[in-house]
Parts: sequence; structure tokens; C-alpha cells
Amino acid sequence: MKLASLRHPTKRDGELIVVSRDNKMAVKAGHVAGCLREAIESWSESKPKLEKIFADLNLGRCKEAFELRAETLHSPLPRSFQWADGSAFLFHVKLVRQARGAEMPPSLLTTPLIYQGGGDDFLAPTENIPQVDFSHGTDFEGEVAVVVDDVPMGVTPEKALDHIILFMTVNDVSLRGLIPEELAQGFGFFQSKPSSAFGPIAVTKDELGGAYRGGRIHLPLLVTYNGERFGDPDAGAMHFHFGQLIAHAAKTRNLRAGTIIGSGTVSNEDATRGSSCLAEKRMLEKVQTGEIKTPFMKVGDSIRIEMKNEKGESIFGAIDQTIVRAKFN
Amino acid sequence: MKLASLRHPTKRDGELIVVSRDNKMAVKAGHVAGCLREAIESWSESKPKLEKIFADLNLGRCKEAFELRAETLHSPLPRSFQWADGSAFLFHVKLVRQARGAEMPPSLLTTPLIYQGGGDDFLAPTENIPQVDFSHGTDFEGEVAVVVDDVPMGVTPEKALDHIILFMTVNDVSLRGLIPEELAQGFGFFQSKPSSAFGPIAVTKDELGGAYRGGRIHLPLLVTYNGERFGDPDAGAMHFHFGQLIAHAAKTRNLRAGTIIGSGTVSNEDATRGSSCLAEKRMLEKVQTGEIKTPFMKVGDSIRIEMKNEKGESIFGAIDQTIVRAKFN
Repeated sequence: MKLASLRHPTKRDGELIVVSRDNKMAVKAGHVAGCLREAIESWSESKPKLEKIFADLNLGRCKEAFELRAETLHSPLPRSFQWADGSAFLFHVKLVRQARGAEMPPSLLTTPLIYQGGGDDFLAPTENIPQVDFSHGTDFEGEVAVVVDDVPMGVTPEKALDHIILFMTVNDVSLRGLIPEELAQGFGFFQSKPSSAFGPIAVTKDELGGAYRGGRIHLPLLVTYNGERFGDPDAGAMHFHFGQLIAHAAKTRNLRAGTIIGSGTVSNEDATRGSSCLAEKRMLEKVQTGEIKTPFMKVGDSIRIEMKNEKGESIFGAIDQTIVRAKFN
Repeated sequence: MKLASLRHPTKRDGELIVVSRDNKMAVKAGHVAGCLREAIESWSESKPKLEKIFADLNLGRCKEAFELRAETLHSPLPRSFQWADGSAFLFHVKLVRQARGAEMPPSLLTTPLIYQGGGDDFLAPTENIPQVDFSHGTDFEGEVAVVVDDVPMGVTPEKALDHIILFMTVNDVSLRGLIPEELAQGFGFFQSKPSSAFGPIAVTKDELGGAYRGGRIHLPLLVTYNGERFGDPDAGAMHFHFGQLIAHAAKTRNLRAGTIIGSGTVSNEDATRGSSCLAEKRMLEKVQTGEIKTPFMKVGDSIRIEMKNEKGESIFGAIDQTIVRAKFN
């Protein structure tokens, strides 16, 4: 099943729609739940109703169906009570720490890295990224993520997998120039992680077919920067799977329905797969030639993040964003 | 005006009520907004309606009014899309860093410390605190906090003060034993900050009278531990005022209506004022006698946090919580 949210001038959570398997048609589902978040909060009741609509829509049996247009879509969850982002690709951790001269955490292989993100104001998948200051070193980070139902404190990694109800893609925008000082303060990311954007369509496990196994999505994440291929790393190369990330997050507290858990920047050691953030490419340049050539994002630069199934069909629709200068009121 | 939320078996945001100035009576306000969060999201429309109810309630003119009982109340916002907690009392920063052998950040006097907290599952003000493991070093942290309306990115500290619409008290539960390893990883707090609880009543500025000035609440925070006075430090001793904390949080992104910004643990250098967390008392014991006598919280220990106005009347009602052993499903 595929779900999304239409942007709305006054409804902060947008309007829930069901999207056809080919991403071409959609139908409103406001009679099932006020928004996707509310559908998730009553998933056992809303899921069968939404599945029925999805089946009808794919058969061309929904009279109210309309053509889906990318610019009308918000992130599937325009906001969330919890956005927690892991860093499960250890090659990424190695490269970015090398880049800022930070040490590798001694518990790297045994304890997942997860940071608490801000969930009150996500960008839409085709919304411009406002840049406050070029010296902040604006970067994209291509990731995959899951949405869970209510997860009890102390859940095991294996049981945690059963709480995953939806999958998404993410652009976790990062301000590299602000990270060293912020992390040196000891309180983690804040200003250095402005609003993230999510791929427009959230999907259930069955839309991933055999590519979802072992708590990981074994498909390339397609990252296109300024119209050119930047990378297609395998999202299945997570050191910790999603169940381990969820269990880590739930060790001392419950996670409430609608919590989003991110994979961290998708990254492979195989250099032919490219990267899904600029920081990695810059670090590799430095290691290989002694000189960083690739600048961080400037006004006008564009980033596209997508994932296709084995038949080459887009699963989540595309994140497609351009950097603009921030406007202040 | 005083607002609160009744606990509800199925409504995750609880039921909005208006509370009388003396905290004794209340009346439901579900016809104004579905919950306090929704009232905040449409504050310009809901505020005058709620003020009218508050005026009538204080005059004994609400037929539907009922006696307020502490155990029926949730935190005013049972969940929030953003909970960001500052650390604006520098004496606290000094003592807790000394306790864990961490350095003082060089930017301490110029850049506020703020961490991103989890907002999906707050405890009720009289709800037990589930303790997963005694070795985690469970501690309370008494704080004050503000709730804002929509704050634009790049707001100045002065203009930020105009976005404050409600004030609250907080118990920011901390697991001291988990903090050193977690902060050493570089990604900030996660497991070490389980669910916080808030004082049951959120109030507008006029309920604070002359005590609110310069973006700070100049009143003692009354902290009672296991039935004995533990501290009454002045909450007005913040190095950074709330406008500065909000502006810091909004430097690279918007803050959406309902965002909660905390002061950090209230702390004064004057030892006669006591403390509002155990970590400070333990560190002072170590400095004074070479030996830590006070243990962290054990099952059965209770913490009460309250604030009274100049007439000795409780402003926010009391946070009153007891430690219990966590149950796992």
C-alpha cells in the first residue's frame, strides 16, 4: 500500500491520500482518518480500510481518483512527535569523523548512534531548502527511514521489527560548518540539523517485495546532484538493522505511534557506488588528492533522491529540492 | 489564564480544560479546541474564547464547572512536536560537568546549550517514573519552560519574547549513569533522557504578575524530595533569558506552534538555596567532604516540584512523582 499527504493551507498535517502502485493516481481518504498521523495512531482500524481503497484505486474503480502531481505533496508526515535518526552505515561515520578530525566512538560496532531530531516542521519533498548562510556548509544526506506503531519500552530488536508499519526516504539536510562547534558543546545536533524532507510516498512492507529482509531495504538509493548521478549506494548495507535502531531508541522509554526512525546516510565502501552526501565525496577527494574540490551546496544547487524496485519503478516518488536564500520576516 | 489537560483513555492529547485562578475548579473547553495543542495552533482565535471561560469560571458562573483533582490531569501538552531543553543556569553546567569529569564548553557565556528532547510521550505530573535499571542513576531536574506560537527562522531574542504564550514547570528526568557514554559518542542525549513530566497547569504571562520580567520568572522553584525541602533556587537566575534560548533554537529553522523550550535545571550559586537535582548535591558533597553521600533515586523515592506566587499560592500545581520499577510487556 502507498500513502501520502497533500499540502494544505491550514491543515498542518496535510490531507491523507492513497496513491496507486504506479504513483500516477490518488484518492483522498479523509473519511478514514483526519491525516496520515491519525491513521497510524489507529492503524489496526485504518489499515484494512486504506488497503481496500488501494486495491480499488489500482483497479481503476475509484470515481474520485485524480492524477497525482508532485508539487501538491507534502512529506507523508508533515510533522512527527518523534524523529530519531540513526547512523547505521559505519563507512559514513568513519568518513565524516575523519573530515572533522573527530575520533571514532569506541562502541561503534556494538552501540547504534542515534540523534534526536526536530519533528515540528518538515519540508515538502519538492520544497526549496532555505539557506541561512553559505558558510554553514549546507549538505544533503540521502537516507531510508521507517515509521512505527506504539513501541513498548524495552522491546527486543527482533520484536521491534514487527512494529514497523511504513517505509520512507529522507533528505536529512545538514549544516556541516555548524557541526564541530555544536558537537563539541556536548549536547548533540541542533542548529546543524535544520528541517528534513521525506520522499512523497510512504509504503508498506509488501511494496518492497523481496528487497526488504533482515530489517534492511536491499536496494540502491539513487542520488542525483545538479542533474548528474552522484551515487547509488546499497541501502541494505546497514551495520545495525532497523529493529536494532528501534530497540536502542526504546531502551528507557516508549516510542509512540508515528515515530520516524532514520537509517543515517546511506554509504558503501565500494567507491564505484558514489555517495549520498557531499561530506563523503569531499573527504575522499582529500584522501586521494590532498585537495577538496567539491564545494558544499550553493543557491541554485539541486538534489534528487529516489529508490526504484527491481523492475525500475519508483517506490517512494522523488525528493527533488533546490537551495534558495532564506528569507527573514 | 490557566489551562490544563485531562487524561483520556483514547485521546492522546487529552481533553482541554480551563482551570480557575485558585486551581480548585475547572471546566471543559472541547468546544473551543480539540486539545491544548490545537488551541495553541489557532491561538489568536482560541485565546479570547478561553479567556472568557476563565473569567466566568473565576466568578463562579460556569454551570459545568467541577472540582479539580490532581490525579485526573496529564501534562498540559501530553505530547509536543518539539521539546527543546536549554541549560541556562551556568552553575548547574559547572557542577554536572565537574561531576562527570567533562570540560566546560569554551562558548559557555555566549552560546546557549540546548538539546533536542523527545516529545512523543510525556509523563503525567503525578505519574510514576518507571526505572529500567538502578545503575542508570535516575535523577530529577526541576525546571521552568515556555510554550511558543509559530516562531520564524532567524527571530531576534527580543522579538522571540513576544512568541511566548504559556509558562510551565518541568521534571526533566535524567539517567546520569548513561550520560557520559552517550555524550562521548557525540550525538547528544537519547537513552539518558527518558520521558519528562510537566506541572499540571500551563499559565499565561499575566498569572506571573511582576515576577516575569526580562524573559525570566523571578520566583523560587520549590523542590521537595521524599517529603523534605531539597531546594528553593531562584528561577530568575538564568544566564540566557527565554528569548535568547528561542532565538538560538530558531537560528536555522522555524519553530512551530506548541514547541516547548525549557530553562535547564534551576540552579543558584548560593548554597543556602539548595538544588533542584541530585547530581548537584552529590557534587557539592564531594567537593566539601570528599565523599558522595546522597544516592540517586531508588524505587519508592518521591519528588515534588512546585512554584508559588508572592502570596504563597501555587501557580502551576505540583509535579509529584514516585519511582517504580519499569514493567516490560
